[in-house]
Amino acid sequence: MTMFADILSTVFERKVRFSGPASDDKRSTDELALALVGAAGEISGRALGRQILDRYEAMDDDEKLAFFRHLADDMNIAPETVRACLAQYEAMPSKDSYRAFMTAAEPQRQELIRRLNMVPGATGRLVNMRADLLRLGKGDPALAALDLDFRHLFVSWFNRGFLVLRPINWESPAHILEKIIAYEAVHAIDSWDDLRRRLEPSDRRCFAFFHPAMPDEPLIFVEVALTKGVAGSVQALLSEDRDAIPEDQADTAIFYSISNCQAGLASISFGNSLIKQVAGDLSLQMPGLKTFVTLSPIPGFKDWLVSENPDTHPADDAQLKALAAHYLVAAKREDGLPLDPVARFHLGNGALVHKVHANADPSEKGQRQSGGVMVNYLYDLAKISQNHERFAASRTVATSTEIRSLSTAARKILGQEEG
Amino acid sequence: MTMFADILSTVFERKVRFSGPASDDKRSTDELALALVGAAGEISGRALGRQILDRYEAMDDDEKLAFFRHLADDMNIAPETVRACLAQYEAMPSKDSYRAFMTAAEPQRQELIRRLNMVPGATGRLVNMRADLLRLGKGDPALAALDLDFRHLFVSWFNRGFLVLRPINWESPAHILEKIIAYEAVHAIDSWDDLRRRLEPSDRRCFAFFHPAMPDEPLIFVEVALTKGVAGSVQALLSEDRDAIPEDQADTAIFYSISNCQAGLASISFGNSLIKQVAGDLSLQMPGLKTFVTLSPIPGFKDWLVSENPDTHPADDAQLKALAAHYLVAAKREDGLPLDPVARFHLGNGALVHKVHANADPSEKGQRQSGGVMVNYLYDLAKISQNHERFAASRTVATSTEIRSLSTAARKILGQEEG
Amino acid sequence: MTMFADILSTVFERKVRFSGPASDDKRSTDELALALVGAAGEISGRALGRQILDRYEAMDDDEKLAFFRHLADDMNIAPETVRACLAQYEAMPSKDSYRAFMTAAEPQRQELIRRLNMVPGATGRLVNMRADLLRLGKGDPALAALDLDFRHLFVSWFNRGFLVLRPINWESPAHILEKIIAYEAVHAIDSWDDLRRRLEPSDRRCFAFFHPAMPDEPLIFVEVALTKGVAGSVQALLSEDRDAIPEDQADTAIFYSISNCQAGLASISFGNSLIKQVAGDLSLQMPGLKTFVTLSPIPGFKDWLVSENPDTHPADDAQLKALAAHYLVAAKREDGLPLDPVARFHLGNGALVHKVHANADPSEKGQRQSGGVMVNYLYDLAKISQNHERFAASRTVATSTEIRSLSTAARKILGQEEG
Amino acid sequence: MTMFADILSTVFERKVRFSGPASDDKRSTDELALALVGAAGEISGRALGRQILDRYEAMDDDEKLAFFRHLADDMNIAPETVRACLAQYEAMPSKDSYRAFMTAAEPQRQELIRRLNMVPGATGRLVNMRADLLRLGKGDPALAALDLDFRHLFVSWFNRGFLVLRPINWESPAHILEKIIAYEAVHAIDSWDDLRRRLEPSDRRCFAFFHPAMPDEPLIFVEVALTKGVAGSVQALLSEDRDAIPEDQADTAIFYSISNCQAGLASISFGNSLIKQVAGDLSLQMPGLKTFVTLSPIPGFKDWLVSENPDTHPADDAQLKALAAHYLVAAKREDGLPLDPVARFHLGNGALVHKVHANADPSEKGQRQSGGVMVNYLYDLAKISQNHERFAASRTVATSTEIRSLSTAARKILGQEEG
Repeated sequence: MTMFADILSTVFERKVRFSGPASDDKRSTDELALALVGAAGEISGRALGRQILDRYEAMDDDEKLAFFRHLADDMNIAPETVRACLAQYEAMPSKDSYRAFMTAAEPQRQELIRRLNMVPGATGRLVNMRADLLRLGKGDPALAALDLDFRHLFVSWFNRGFLVLRPINWESPAHILEKIIAYEAVHAIDSWDDLRRRLEPSDRRCFAFFHPAMPDEPLIFVEVALTKGVAGSVQALLSEDRDAIPEDQADTAIFYSISNCQAGLASISFGNSLIKQVAGDLSLQMPGLKTFVTLSPIPGFKDWLVSENPDTHPADDAQLKALAAHYLVAAKREDGLPLDPVARFHLGNGALVHKVHANADPSEKGQRQSGGVMVNYLYDLAKISQNHERFAASRTVATSTEIRSLSTAARKILGQEEG
Repeated sequence: MTMFADILSTVFERKVRFSGPASDDKRSTDELALALVGAAGEISGRALGRQILDRYEAMDDDEKLAFFRHLADDMNIAPETVRACLAQYEAMPSKDSYRAFMTAAEPQRQELIRRLNMVPGATGRLVNMRADLLRLGKGDPALAALDLDFRHLFVSWFNRGFLVLRPINWESPAHILEKIIAYEAVHAIDSWDDLRRRLEPSDRRCFAFFHPAMPDEPLIFVEVALTKGVAGSVQALLSEDRDAIPEDQADTAIFYSISNCQAGLASISFGNSLIKQVAGDLSLQMPGLKTFVTLSPIPGFKDWLVSENPDTHPADDAQLKALAAHYLVAAKREDGLPLDPVARFHLGNGALVHKVHANADPSEKGQRQSGGVMVNYLYDLAKISQNHERFAASRTVATSTEIRSLSTAARKILGQEEG
Repeated sequence: MTMFADILSTVFERKVRFSGPASDDKRSTDELALALVGAAGEISGRALGRQILDRYEAMDDDEKLAFFRHLADDMNIAPETVRACLAQYEAMPSKDSYRAFMTAAEPQRQELIRRLNMVPGATGRLVNMRADLLRLGKGDPALAALDLDFRHLFVSWFNRGFLVLRPINWESPAHILEKIIAYEAVHAIDSWDDLRRRLEPSDRRCFAFFHPAMPDEPLIFVEVALTKGVAGSVQALLSEDRDAIPEDQADTAIFYSISNCQAGLASISFGNSLIKQVAGDLSLQMPGLKTFVTLSPIPGFKDWLVSENPDTHPADDAQLKALAAHYLVAAKREDGLPLDPVARFHLGNGALVHKVHANADPSEKGQRQSGGVMVNYLYDLAKISQNHERFAASRTVATSTEIRSLSTAARKILGQEEG
Repeated sequence: MTMFADILSTVFERKVRFSGPASDDKRSTDELALALVGAAGEISGRALGRQILDRYEAMDDDEKLAFFRHLADDMNIAPETVRACLAQYEAMPSKDSYRAFMTAAEPQRQELIRRLNMVPGATGRLVNMRADLLRLGKGDPALAALDLDFRHLFVSWFNRGFLVLRPINWESPAHILEKIIAYEAVHAIDSWDDLRRRLEPSDRRCFAFFHPAMPDEPLIFVEVALTKGVAGSVQALLSEDRDAIPEDQADTAIFYSISNCQAGLASISFGNSLIKQVAGDLSLQMPGLKTFVTLSPIPGFKDWLVSENPDTHPADDAQLKALAAHYLVAAKREDGLPLDPVARFHLGNGALVHKVHANADPSEKGQRQSGGVMVNYLYDLAKISQNHERFAASRTVATSTEIRSLSTAARKILGQEEG
């Protein structure tokens, strides 16, 4: 019954949303926003909120920008009031004085966004609104501050505890699958046939996080290949004419693609949960799986090599691999974190640098970024916590013996060995 | 697939929650709370959070109170920091200065609660935690302030847009139904047979709001009787040997009981949505339904009569009804709102005072509170918004002609008629 | 929970089916078939049955034909035994003598097919087996008799009461949708985009019958367009750049394509239920729908015109329409039923011939078969039963006034008017 | 979507069934039955069928009996026709002559039952009709023959391949659970609290078979206790104040109760699949489970002891157990099968006699039937097939060493030892 009712109500609300005509309020959208924050009751609130969202979505970019400026400037905190309320709270801490301070210290636009979210179906629309804000507000401090308010609320709404992990497969609804095609960011999906090759075979899996208030929109998804041994090339994984293996023969799960779907959820981190939860689930379901690795690009390798070691030209694949391993282990930003963004993501999750493969990515992009080298990050469920802690505390990059040897070899190539 | 996966993941997470052994951290729970707020990564965060929740639930009331005091005192805002950050933001508004202010102006305990909520299944546990806080913290200003932080977050999490309306019927899961039995607050449900009489007949309905993160816990529910004409007695509705009518013969839906289920969600208002949404849904499904009314108690009537009009003794049912109508219409608090709490709720929702019935509630409680008089509040879908606005703006109590006549009659009884 | 458990068990059984290795029985498949019919217990029965199905599916056509001959010849009734049992039953009617007669009068191959059906997932495999039989056994009387046994059982298994009507839409699972693409027999679906155009718009619907034992296989489906007024051309309905109308503006449902999916279910009639049930459902959901019509091809029109009236050449669209109407109304087979197969189907269902349209089907097939004319059969829910009865009893073809006028006009063109 | 649509359609059909008024046909029900068999079309057929079912359900027992007699006598086979058709088929085997024979050899009442089953929701109603027939027709040969026709069709409809195994738990719908309470035949369930004790604890399971056309009616269910070691007393299992063990500590699954739910499905065997499928499922889900046993009554033990060995009075529990073991192993019917009906059931399924326990069933019924002794039948998944075959082929009763020793000991008590 659970599910049935869920959908019924969802379906109902969806219909309701589209069926009624928007009322014809003469006030400007900015005025409506102020009215919504001041509205006493939920009923008028929902009608107002819906009208604001409808109007917003009909705006062009300039109008949207003007609307954002209104939020940023006219619905900001009032420092005087904050100070006064704080003083009062300090003088006489009480429920009332604390509430007054809370209200003063939070800009009205946060309350506005919360109230807009009371409109059925609003959550996804607000995510799209933030995507606009990120796109239009770049470099503007006031709009960056406004974005912090969106982000603050979204972190709360998209709390990991509210997300639902769902398998995506060839039995999934078409309207979800077409979004998987659209959102795949790492290895583009050409067609429905290509999609089927990634979902239907017995040795393929895909999982996505969803939020109950946006049931038709995946938030992030990961594609997994079940293999015997660690595959060293994405070409082999995505080949059209490969033979699938029965799932019980697989000993390795390769996370070969992970894609964020919602621009409006940028920097709301749930990706790091995804791989770990999927690895945990798969290991329960298929006890034969012993190894959980990614097959990841190394986007910054060639740039680093050219800029840091302009005179080094790898003589062969062995040298190329050694240099790539070294880059992953040793190339750091000023803050001590790895230079490579993908490395930062997986090492931050508690993975370790496991293996590198030459000729692993024949695509133009792969050649350009890393000379075709790819890397496996290993998710060792028993060591994730420890790796993560050490990385967080001391920037320590966890590596396999093989990677350490390659890095040592690279130092010789680069002429860095100690004398 | 949608549903299936949902449950699978829910079930999985539930198992995970109970299966793993809690780690044996030597730190105190207060220290863990501080560590959780400071934790860099989600992984360690979830483990810490789980441990805090597990420990909390094993505490006795004194320990819980101490824990709350820690949150209230040691994880509060630091006024000096707030002031400093505010000054810096004023001097140089930027993303960074705004973020610093936001962080300073929000007590750490809010972040703590948010992080606790990342533990799978935590939402319901935090609701229970707040129920403890409300129970244990009464009258303590610091704990009342702490409660405002809980409330602030819960308002966001239990946003109407996230709630799901589900029918409750005799095909609902038993573990949900036993909660309906337990939570019914208006007309107690004696047994499973009594429950069945309220759910199974063709002329009975029940609906509840659920939150996706607490799928096994109704938040609030309403019981509905479909009738021909407006019933004037709850006895008639709940009689064991009445005959059900086919649903297509009903012209009236009577909301005869509405119960909140979660003490920890006190003052998070979603009840006012429930009746309106149910009324809207029913009117779509059963076009024959023309009238949507409650059959409600009048809890403050007798007290008011005795204290305000000690010498007035209603001579008969007609006088009793007139006085009850007058009480609902004219008895006000200092702030101008109706004295009767149930009246405040329904009038605030946009309902109007429709009819009063003598001998409508033969229960001991009903006799004591209102001499057995009950009232129908009418939800006229076309006028809800307007009623609500006028009530919110000017405290105007919407009434039927009949009620106005009764109130006029009552003034005579009370000797208030103008001369 | 219902659903969840359903799938769980389905999924489980599906896995079980593929996971175990088939035992290596030395007996021939024919011997296994005899053994299965004689097997005392269900356990050995299921293992035997599975092995027979596995072996069968690995056979080439010659082997399949030999297997069918074995069933037809060696598992047929034994007339002597039938006669003896019948005599005994006549002499002494009793439970035992009746049972003995029943057993004797039913060929063993029926019991074989029933026992094969005890293997999880077998139903669909047996449907495929019959598809082979129909293909390979054409014109062979013994195999035609064998097919009657399959048909006899399938009629029982695919009883209308066991079928489930499901909407097919853009939220349906991809593995179902790809079958819709594959099975569409009337107006081919070119691509997933073409499919989406038929499923996603607010004014399109599709429904299919499923059998619970073959949940991944639609049995028959119908595509519906919701329109204002009766559309006169399939081109207009399937145009890529048409604008969808809101569903509440539609007054007409056009069933523009109906396709059987399973060759192995030929002559198991459930198609005639489909349109009527869908029409009934839609009229409940959308009270604005007043007219339910098909937009159907007239496959035999041109052939009839050429062979029966070789000298008649329609001068214009008006004459073409008149002749088409006349063909539908007046051209009969020897048994008195309409010559046109599509007309037989819809008139047998209780529809009436409503309207004809020239230039309605520009496809090569449409031009060749009917010179582009198409016809609307009207499903008038209030008259279906009566039309059906009269058609069944006296071959009366129900028609609209317009069609009758056209037919009269046609008689003049054909020189058939009395005089 | 699968599920959702399923229910929607089910719900819809259910409503349709009750909503329309039955037409007022003047013909007798017997005439309607003949008309239904002769009806050309499905539409009139469904209306007729529904009317017959509605009328049947309003009949008293005498009328029902008269209706059954009509089916038995007037819709029976016509021997002359059978003979004639058979002769024609022999003379000239063809599709037509075979079809004519099939039709003649099958009594019309089978076709009647099949056509009744086309009415939505009819399957369960026909099951109830057969329950009436079994109750009213006892000892009447013509009605016994009629029952064979029902049975013949039900075997086909309730084919194991069509059944769905579903877990029953405290989250199951209440309307299903109340049927579990009603149908429990072995150890009565006193109340909803008692039911909860059997469903909710972590170490309890329940499973039922359902048919998709009767989704609200369990067909047969089994209750399971997960234990450490083999429990020797049903009292221990059902005790109110026992402590549940975590499911991962269990090594044994005890099937302590199995109940058929539908009198109208008597002798349609699916019970033997149930235990085996549940055992198989549980062993996949909980690899820690090593032993699958029943805890079964020995209903015929005391009767046998008294009638066969009137002078034997067991001196103590040890003797009682030995004699019970011997009874199970050695007491046979004339056909060589075990005398004890429960033993026949489980041994026929491939189980073995594993252990006997004294003082295991303190109920009055248990004392009377078996002096409180109960038995474990062991389902050893690896040996079920072999046990079953040997039992089917040669009546060999599989036993544990312990049971064999006890049986030998019993022979001494009974003075049967050789020598």
